[in-house]
Amino acid sequence: MSTKIPRNKENDYTREAAEVRRNFVKDHTNAELKHVGQFSFHPSILPGNIENFIGVAQVPIGLAGPLLVNGEFAKGEFYVPLATTEGTLVASYNRGMKLLSESDGVTTTVVDDAMQRAPAFVFKSAREAQKFGDWVKKNFAEIKLHAESTTSVGKLRDIQQFPASRFLYLRFNFTTGDAAGQNMVGKATKAACDWICTVYKGIERYQLEGSFATDKKTSWVNTLNTRGKKVIAEATISAEKLKSIMHVSVEQIFEARLASQLGGYLAGVNNNGAHSANGITAMFIACGQDVANVAESSAAAVYAEITKSGDYYFSVTIPSLIVATYGGGTGLPTQRECLELLGCFGKGKVKKFAEIVAATVLCGELSLGTAVIADEWVSSHEALGRNR
Amino acid sequence: MSTKIPRNKENDYTREAAEVRRNFVKDHTNAELKHVGQFSFHPSILPGNIENFIGVAQVPIGLAGPLLVNGEFAKGEFYVPLATTEGTLVASYNRGMKLLSESDGVTTTVVDDAMQRAPAFVFKSAREAQKFGDWVKKNFAEIKLHAESTTSVGKLRDIQQFPASRFLYLRFNFTTGDAAGQNMVGKATKAACDWICTVYKGIERYQLEGSFATDKKTSWVNTLNTRGKKVIAEATISAEKLKSIMHVSVEQIFEARLASQLGGYLAGVNNNGAHSANGITAMFIACGQDVANVAESSAAAVYAEITKSGDYYFSVTIPSLIVATYGGGTGLPTQRECLELLGCFGKGKVKKFAEIVAATVLCGELSLGTAVIADEWVSSHEALGRNR
Amino acid sequence: MSTKIPRNKENDYTREAAEVRRNFVKDHTNAELKHVGQFSFHPSILPGNIENFIGVAQVPIGLAGPLLVNGEFAKGEFYVPLATTEGTLVASYNRGMKLLSESDGVTTTVVDDAMQRAPAFVFKSAREAQKFGDWVKKNFAEIKLHAESTTSVGKLRDIQQFPASRFLYLRFNFTTGDAAGQNMVGKATKAACDWICTVYKGIERYQLEGSFATDKKTSWVNTLNTRGKKVIAEATISAEKLKSIMHVSVEQIFEARLASQLGGYLAGVNNNGAHSANGITAMFIACGQDVANVAESSAAAVYAEITKSGDYYFSVTIPSLIVATYGGGTGLPTQRECLELLGCFGKGKVKKFAEIVAATVLCGELSLGTAVIADEWVSSHEALGRNR
Amino acid sequence: MSTKIPRNKENDYTREAAEVRRNFVKDHTNAELKHVGQFSFHPSILPGNIENFIGVAQVPIGLAGPLLVNGEFAKGEFYVPLATTEGTLVASYNRGMKLLSESDGVTTTVVDDAMQRAPAFVFKSAREAQKFGDWVKKNFAEIKLHAESTTSVGKLRDIQQFPASRFLYLRFNFTTGDAAGQNMVGKATKAACDWICTVYKGIERYQLEGSFATDKKTSWVNTLNTRGKKVIAEATISAEKLKSIMHVSVEQIFEARLASQLGGYLAGVNNNGAHSANGITAMFIACGQDVANVAESSAAAVYAEITKSGDYYFSVTIPSLIVATYGGGTGLPTQRECLELLGCFGKGKVKKFAEIVAATVLCGELSLGTAVIADEWVSSHEALGRNR
Repeated sequence: MSTKIPRNKENDYTREAAEVRRNFVKDHTNAELKHVGQFSFHPSILPGNIENFIGVAQVPIGLAGPLLVNGEFAKGEFYVPLATTEGTLVASYNRGMKLLSESDGVTTTVVDDAMQRAPAFVFKSAREAQKFGDWVKKNFAEIKLHAESTTSVGKLRDIQQFPASRFLYLRFNFTTGDAAGQNMVGKATKAACDWICTVYKGIERYQLEGSFATDKKTSWVNTLNTRGKKVIAEATISAEKLKSIMHVSVEQIFEARLASQLGGYLAGVNNNGAHSANGITAMFIACGQDVANVAESSAAAVYAEITKSGDYYFSVTIPSLIVATYGGGTGLPTQRECLELLGCFGKGKVKKFAEIVAATVLCGELSLGTAVIADEWVSSHEALGRNR
Repeated sequence: MSTKIPRNKENDYTREAAEVRRNFVKDHTNAELKHVGQFSFHPSILPGNIENFIGVAQVPIGLAGPLLVNGEFAKGEFYVPLATTEGTLVASYNRGMKLLSESDGVTTTVVDDAMQRAPAFVFKSAREAQKFGDWVKKNFAEIKLHAESTTSVGKLRDIQQFPASRFLYLRFNFTTGDAAGQNMVGKATKAACDWICTVYKGIERYQLEGSFATDKKTSWVNTLNTRGKKVIAEATISAEKLKSIMHVSVEQIFEARLASQLGGYLAGVNNNGAHSANGITAMFIACGQDVANVAESSAAAVYAEITKSGDYYFSVTIPSLIVATYGGGTGLPTQRECLELLGCFGKGKVKKFAEIVAATVLCGELSLGTAVIADEWVSSHEALGRNR
Repeated sequence: MSTKIPRNKENDYTREAAEVRRNFVKDHTNAELKHVGQFSFHPSILPGNIENFIGVAQVPIGLAGPLLVNGEFAKGEFYVPLATTEGTLVASYNRGMKLLSESDGVTTTVVDDAMQRAPAFVFKSAREAQKFGDWVKKNFAEIKLHAESTTSVGKLRDIQQFPASRFLYLRFNFTTGDAAGQNMVGKATKAACDWICTVYKGIERYQLEGSFATDKKTSWVNTLNTRGKKVIAEATISAEKLKSIMHVSVEQIFEARLASQLGGYLAGVNNNGAHSANGITAMFIACGQDVANVAESSAAAVYAEITKSGDYYFSVTIPSLIVATYGGGTGLPTQRECLELLGCFGKGKVKKFAEIVAATVLCGELSLGTAVIADEWVSSHEALGRNR
Repeated sequence: MSTKIPRNKENDYTREAAEVRRNFVKDHTNAELKHVGQFSFHPSILPGNIENFIGVAQVPIGLAGPLLVNGEFAKGEFYVPLATTEGTLVASYNRGMKLLSESDGVTTTVVDDAMQRAPAFVFKSAREAQKFGDWVKKNFAEIKLHAESTTSVGKLRDIQQFPASRFLYLRFNFTTGDAAGQNMVGKATKAACDWICTVYKGIERYQLEGSFATDKKTSWVNTLNTRGKKVIAEATISAEKLKSIMHVSVEQIFEARLASQLGGYLAGVNNNGAHSANGITAMFIACGQDVANVAESSAAAVYAEITKSGDYYFSVTIPSLIVATYGGGTGLPTQRECLELLGCFGKGKVKKFAEIVAATVLCGELSLGTAVIADEWVSSHEALGRNR
């Protein structure tokens, strides 16, 4: 017989309520949640972050660095907290950071910034949908007004139109300050759409999401445009450093890259690099990001070339890096501490954080890329990883 | 001036070594890692999971359920631990589980199982590569022998061939027992390739990965084949339950699905559903999975139809769900407890775990899908989420 | 020893020059080009269409129709010339046109229109590229002036920006009147870029195409935006007509569509319909279009639903239909006659032609879609096709 | 009022019947089909190629060559007929062929060969579908027997399985001799499926195509596997020839390639080269191929590198080149002559033809690729193309 999880009607965010649920678990599954029940903060801080709280996952954090960044927002050396259970990961990123620190660091640029909600409007026919599209263009200012009435931070940048069949998919692009902004833009878009429906006649119905925002999904629309921040990290590494620190020549790493690039293209990857998801996920868990956004944030385009002087130019373009330094999980205790460690907690810090993530990714790409060639990949996992 | 992170040469996996590093952080960044430093286990368990350990991320876990599963391996009711900082997530999955528990539960089937490493072999010309391909087919038995000599668990199932230019990309498909197996198959494939190079003449060089395994990347090769488990979750929900519990009609949810499906197809998504990454990520963090695999595991194909009796058939196919119940982070304290809570810790449990993840995903899809239509999406985030 | 194809220095576009080359072919390959040498026009009309002219391919044309179109530009009944060597094709399209003619015809709408060239500009770093992007936005008016100085027809609509690594890819979107416009926009974009290079400092180099126009290639950037015309064709067919003419029920065709849609999505198709390339190619050959544009023009998105009254709503969205009624091969003798047969030769006709193509496609989709279900597919090919 | 196209009940494949229809066209549309009505053969040869025949499209053919091929099947010099109305196309391919002829020619290899039909089988649940999949594996020999009972040429190579939801998509891979084989495999697969349905219980229904063959559509399943022939063309061109004939350096062409490759990858192209569709389409029209297959055949993967000696290695992999030298339009008069001109008419010639097409494509890629850089692209279109 199915039994509901106990909830405390008065105040569910207490140590006691969590314990009641852990006991319930024990009664029903025989599992003792001893470690889960050990956390260092009071549950009263949790509303807005979790429901049916029972305790915490303790995810080990390793420190990598120093990471040398020449960003517009992130400048200087950083030590990067990486929460993971995968042996070798921290060591590998650390190795890449060492290479870049002994070179001229990683240059980073945030080139785009937008968060979206994409409602679908349904009409009798494509032609009706098209007319509506014209109306939307003409009435952008008023739509913007209604959207922004719900938020002090979010700004409606533009509305892209994607007509198909008897639908018009609108992609509302917002800037959202230091928040990731998914909820903010959902609320704002809904306000705008509800208003639209009161003034525009002939809409059969609308749905707040028509799969053109592709939240929690990688997609071409996000790779071509952006979702979150589009960030580019680049570096030039001298042939000599590559040899002395990574034990490979520029020619070796470049020929391996060309072969991988062809393979990845034919395999239909959303990322022609190596493993950006590793560094991004580890930083996301440590720093209170919405980790499910790894789905979008793992897209990447690596570009490399041998410079005229024989050195190695290497870059990673991350089209949809979804990050926040405010809201969501950023204010929880360990998460906040990790953001503080990067000097990225709070307002006005989100692009700085985006740059550090991108720079970290670049270091990890070079580290794995060279290890594969230098034949150190399997052996390092032997040394540092669990034998899975 | 750049300073290296301190390491304890004798034994780095101690509370003291972690504290030394936290103090180093404080000296260099002014950030105090008070909460990070609070964990409930001894660091001596950590080798193989982390390097440069400083403490833990405490990620809140909420409990959802009961989840009724009719799997081949998972049978009955489960309570699902979800580690997240995103308000509403647990409540939303819980709502979906309620619907399915009051229906006939979720039927799950694991239809494929393979983990891979994909070396690229380089030749003078395509024709040389082709000849090598013939040789590989003929010598599969011996290649398998050398690959499996490195592991007691991994079994080489088959080798796919992808020729292009003067390369032959080989995709070694292994079964890996209850481990995710990325390292296991890397080591095994390397052993096989090293042996190949001693006996087959004319190989210019090989690299252990040519981007056809697409580790940590979503890809068409993985969606068409698999990486990890290919799992299908399905359910039929009566029109009546849909109305009484979710407040929508079958027709409403189906028309919204059709519009989303067209939108998603044109947007180029790797997942034509709503947000499977949310549930998968939260279970992965709680249960000690390699969370970066959300990149691959977030691919999904939803299929829905109205049955002849007017009810709603709904299914999710997850082509590349990478899970483990052994190795990696599965043995760490909170992670193990969460697997135990699902009856999924240890050997012989990985398909059971895969089925529970897929069933959870299905519940979340129906919950969000109906909330969007019933106009409860924004309002529930207002009530339960932080105002990001 | 290699021998050059003979060319007539004075005037190469004569019957004699063509014959000299056919004799050359005979001498070198023993092939007699008797039929190839028979054509009904004087070669003097050919400069601008072909080089090294030897004769013609005679491609059989079949007539299908009447096709009933309710377009904005194409209104009424049309007879459609289809040049193909594939048995059954004309019969199949004809069958679909019959169904639609006995229903209310096909409604068509051209929802977008743009032809592009997409140069890549190379900079020292991503940040330099970003600055240039800002400059391009600010100087759009002047860029437009320079681009349009080369053409009386082409109008520069907008410039999309796609930054990646140290590149800025610009996608120049033009309207091109009744011409397809690939050459027109190439020349115009080059003029603009050359001017840009004289005034903007810091450009390392630029190349006129950076693969963001994706000429002769299907792509997501074209499916999401457009290349040529984005056209939507729709129709509602009564359950009764579907049964009496096509021998299938609405439920049957819809369930087959859902299964195909899932299959196509997972197969990674650029067209979730059946065979739009068939009708498009046959019209392109007949009507003097650039047939290689089938690569782009074959992308499509089908959307279907059962209406509340139990009838079948069916639509095809063709995102990148590249058509012309002026320039290219449209003025050649048989090609012009076929355009005239549709009332589509010359200026001001291109959208009309686009609508007829899209309406034709829709008829073909319904014809094949129903034949597969009614078990008439293989048998009709048996009856009408060569047994390949 | 709608009027049916006249058909001759006794014998519709006569000059008179075609004329009756041209007169009908004149009556209804005022278009005179004078040139269309001029063809050099008797319509009695047309059954199996066209219905409602009214005449022919005369598509100009230009000759390019000599093309030097080092294939397994095509060896030596060829003159290539290209049917097109696009000025510059023949000249451009010719230019590329000159470069390759003065180098060591193009090396070609056919690395895969399969044509498919992909039925979808529908079951009550995924588990039932899975059981059926096991049965299919065990009963392959008998399925093959039934499939091959319908054809003396087609051989069932293997059946791939793609499970999703409650469907099992089967991809029947056949070899089809010198025919393209779409109809052949349709008939054979139907025979197999009909037999399966008589012996296997529990199939809800099946449909002969479930969009996993992706006929007339480009797709990932075809790019990863093949549809038709997978052909690779490669060449090494000396730096000196590149400079003297094409006026570019190896470094220039390679840096342009890298920039294009990144652009194309981010644009989501099915072909990271330049314009293979141009050459393929022109050969397809001339040689009686099913031109709509340009949809699939236009997919390609270019790979280039600078060799250790400073020369340029360049290759094109065409995964899904659908060609025939028997059946379809190959026996029509001009079409046959063009195949004969290549020494490719009839049985045992299809791989030779595939190799010549691939070699032609490679020449075209190098010609356009260098023209863009040498700044000769726009100017050559000015000189040779109509000003569209």
